[in-house]
Amino acid sequence: MESLTISEWLLTELKQGRFPPRMPSHRRVYEAIRRAIATQHLTPGARLPSTRSLAEELSLSRNTLLAAFEQLHEEGYVVSRIGSGTRVAATLPESFVPMRASGATTDAEPPMNTSGRNTSGLSKRGAIVAGPSDQPSYEVQPFTPGEDDFSAFPTQIWRRLLNRQWRDPQPAFLDYGHAGGHLPLRHAIANYLRMSRTVNLTVEQVLITSGTQQSIDLCARMLTDYGDRVWVENPCYWGARRVLEVNGLSLHPVPVDDEGMAPGNTDFRNPPRLIYTTPSHQYPKGVAMSYGRRRLLLDYAASRGAWILEDDYDSEFRFEGRPLSSLQGMDQSGCVLYMGTFSKVMYPGIKLGYIVVPPELAERFKRGLYELQRPGQVVIQAALADFIEEGHFSTHIRRLRQIYKERRYLLQKALAPVTNVGARLPPAGSGLHLVVELPAACDDVRVAELAAEQGLRVYPLSHYSVGEKREKGLIIGYAYASTDRITTYGRILADVIQAALSN
Amino acid sequence: MESLTISEWLLTELKQGRFPPRMPSHRRVYEAIRRAIATQHLTPGARLPSTRSLAEELSLSRNTLLAAFEQLHEEGYVVSRIGSGTRVAATLPESFVPMRASGATTDAEPPMNTSGRNTSGLSKRGAIVAGPSDQPSYEVQPFTPGEDDFSAFPTQIWRRLLNRQWRDPQPAFLDYGHAGGHLPLRHAIANYLRMSRTVNLTVEQVLITSGTQQSIDLCARMLTDYGDRVWVENPCYWGARRVLEVNGLSLHPVPVDDEGMAPGNTDFRNPPRLIYTTPSHQYPKGVAMSYGRRRLLLDYAASRGAWILEDDYDSEFRFEGRPLSSLQGMDQSGCVLYMGTFSKVMYPGIKLGYIVVPPELAERFKRGLYELQRPGQVVIQAALADFIEEGHFSTHIRRLRQIYKERRYLLQKALAPVTNVGARLPPAGSGLHLVVELPAACDDVRVAELAAEQGLRVYPLSHYSVGEKREKGLIIGYAYASTDRITTYGRILADVIQAALSN
Repeated sequence: MESLTISEWLLTELKQGRFPPRMPSHRRVYEAIRRAIATQHLTPGARLPSTRSLAEELSLSRNTLLAAFEQLHEEGYVVSRIGSGTRVAATLPESFVPMRASGATTDAEPPMNTSGRNTSGLSKRGAIVAGPSDQPSYEVQPFTPGEDDFSAFPTQIWRRLLNRQWRDPQPAFLDYGHAGGHLPLRHAIANYLRMSRTVNLTVEQVLITSGTQQSIDLCARMLTDYGDRVWVENPCYWGARRVLEVNGLSLHPVPVDDEGMAPGNTDFRNPPRLIYTTPSHQYPKGVAMSYGRRRLLLDYAASRGAWILEDDYDSEFRFEGRPLSSLQGMDQSGCVLYMGTFSKVMYPGIKLGYIVVPPELAERFKRGLYELQRPGQVVIQAALADFIEEGHFSTHIRRLRQIYKERRYLLQKALAPVTNVGARLPPAGSGLHLVVELPAACDDVRVAELAAEQGLRVYPLSHYSVGEKREKGLIIGYAYASTDRITTYGRILADVIQAALSN
Repeated sequence: MESLTISEWLLTELKQGRFPPRMPSHRRVYEAIRRAIATQHLTPGARLPSTRSLAEELSLSRNTLLAAFEQLHEEGYVVSRIGSGTRVAATLPESFVPMRASGATTDAEPPMNTSGRNTSGLSKRGAIVAGPSDQPSYEVQPFTPGEDDFSAFPTQIWRRLLNRQWRDPQPAFLDYGHAGGHLPLRHAIANYLRMSRTVNLTVEQVLITSGTQQSIDLCARMLTDYGDRVWVENPCYWGARRVLEVNGLSLHPVPVDDEGMAPGNTDFRNPPRLIYTTPSHQYPKGVAMSYGRRRLLLDYAASRGAWILEDDYDSEFRFEGRPLSSLQGMDQSGCVLYMGTFSKVMYPGIKLGYIVVPPELAERFKRGLYELQRPGQVVIQAALADFIEEGHFSTHIRRLRQIYKERRYLLQKALAPVTNVGARLPPAGSGLHLVVELPAACDDVRVAELAAEQGLRVYPLSHYSVGEKREKGLIIGYAYASTDRITTYGRILADVIQAALSN
């Protein structure tokens, strides 16, 4: 394939027809060129053929090519300068590059060859994590759940704090760092959690990790063995599920109702070693766990010697109602591990999160963290400690809360008409995404595809189900689209949903 | 314990006698105060009692207290100002704080309680990683293996490159980033490996990880299943061993001779799914794998459908002889995964490493990397790409190579006398540590303890053995001690070894 010209390559790509049927031509060309960049058939700095010659070679109108080029230019994939034509940008908008450059070859499971290694070469657990994921295969679009708007992030302050650390770094700051994390950051987190989340803790219980995946992974490894049962909410956060599965755990799905995780008799007959839950804001459904349900879960875990892993991932963004205390703060028997992340309030690439473990586990978890992940990034940890201690963190949270509250309100308003055709918009007072519940007969994957054709990426709720029972709905993120565009996009999405349900 | 005064706490600590028997008093006081800081009995900024009053309360001479305080001051644990006495430093030298603040409670394995959770609460695999490690329980000392000297690191250049990225960061730089890592960095690594390590690759095969532990972990999970057999070298790198064990793999130790990993008939009867090897510079013994042995290993792996994980961890530091090509570069059948790290050439806290995977695994590994670890730290990746592309990387390697070559020479010279009493100094042309081989009857753990009493931390070789056969020796790092002190320390160590072997 390397010897094809770029026009030939694009032609092949366009003919293979791996695009949604109703995707307009200019968008197909746009996608094909992005794939060419992602797969290095076009490298940074490479010159693209003119729109005129490409239009000829691909048998498309020149306007189609112009529209595709404009979008590529707008999103930073290409640059154009007078006299030198259009070139692939030297620095690409990385997060937008699709993960699966050639989607066709990655899903089928190849057969075993004679030497006993299947030709994919992956292990069974490897095949699980390399399987289809919840990740966008196209670019980030206005409603992509889990994506944030960084325009409000105080980059200048952050740069100043980082610079202060780098000006005269202590040698220790370049080393792996203390096993539990940078002490001033652990202090700052302990103070924050004590005040804002009623977490009951001393600084020794706080461990800095490199984010949610690593926190869940560490807990799974330190607390469970291969084949152990773990209760997960159904539907469940995809990232958690993958990490639990790769650790050889048997996932037992527990239904979620309007009071949160709702274990019944079938569940109680299957006691777990670990319970993974998102009580403040169930992912993805958004409900908060009721007081009674919290007590039930804590008492059950204590009586069974099970651990509870409380993922308080979105707790900073509660827009109405009294903030709920953490499960950890209600726990009398020391069976709760509490975790949070800085990826939403700061930025995802910061790769910092934390776990609060019961006192008697602290030393051992520190050792496990060191052995399995090696700490580091002390400079960033030190800057973050300053960011929190100097008050920038709470200022920034307040600001984000204001922004996201408005977006959520506008989105809810724009989506309101869907309730006329059988969809439901459950109340949600927190978080960075909404769920639209669709009737059981509805194909939510198809509705998500229809939305994608309009340039709106939303996730089908059924995708997050564990086991047979699949609830239908759409998960819609509102943290990424700018406030002034959210109504427009919301109306388009409402139209898509209404059209789908009216068919 | 919280209600004890600090003098009472120190007294308890000193009386519990958890110190090597021949450790001098001033050193015990020093250690006890460091433990008080590590366990937060003394927090940053806290004022210490005067040496006079402490001397009285601990029944020690004032000179003992003065000596301990001086050392604490020199190492940055305390600061003193006229009129305000001695206080715990606001910013502690973090890497020097012991990991195990209260060593007494962490090693014993508590029994199961009635609810089926053992009182330690850990899983079996958790207990493995929380077990005794190869980590220093005291501070970094001149010969601690795995520790580097950062004084040569060009901090100013690095800060400038980071600043350039932060001045006007693209939103994508704050996001998780491309699943395989920042593309310009992958290009830079591909170029470097192609030129310097004869690695055979395209940029798609390069994946950025957050370091060696994560690289090994990812390979273990993607390529092996619970219970699979993995060949490891015997002795073997501790960190690799822990990660392989926690993934449920059965470790099959293969002996190492002067040609590197030396599999025999017993080994061939136990074919592995994965072979973990350090061919350029065996860890810890330092030998390079011969050409014949490389061919043997490659042919065997190809015929058995096994994967080889080539850890080329120290390859930048070859001081003499022709650099050996990588195993990956000799591989015809695509069974080698090649990994390296930036922790030695840059600094450990950078937390960046890489794996080069066979082309057909690249997409799946990228997905696995995303699902299990989530990428990030794009700004640092971008700065590192610049650091390499602008030539600072190779300049820095050349400089380090010069420094470490001199230290190695001086250390070898200082240690030479030990060959008169039955120890052996095998030739080693690369790396950042030396091995002194001791007679089989020698207790190398005891010799390491004797060295520790002199303030010299070295690791016993027997600790790195897998299975029954335990070679005896000492692993001595020379990357941390400054060049002008290495001869002095080397002579002290030689004396310790000679005394131990003459007994």
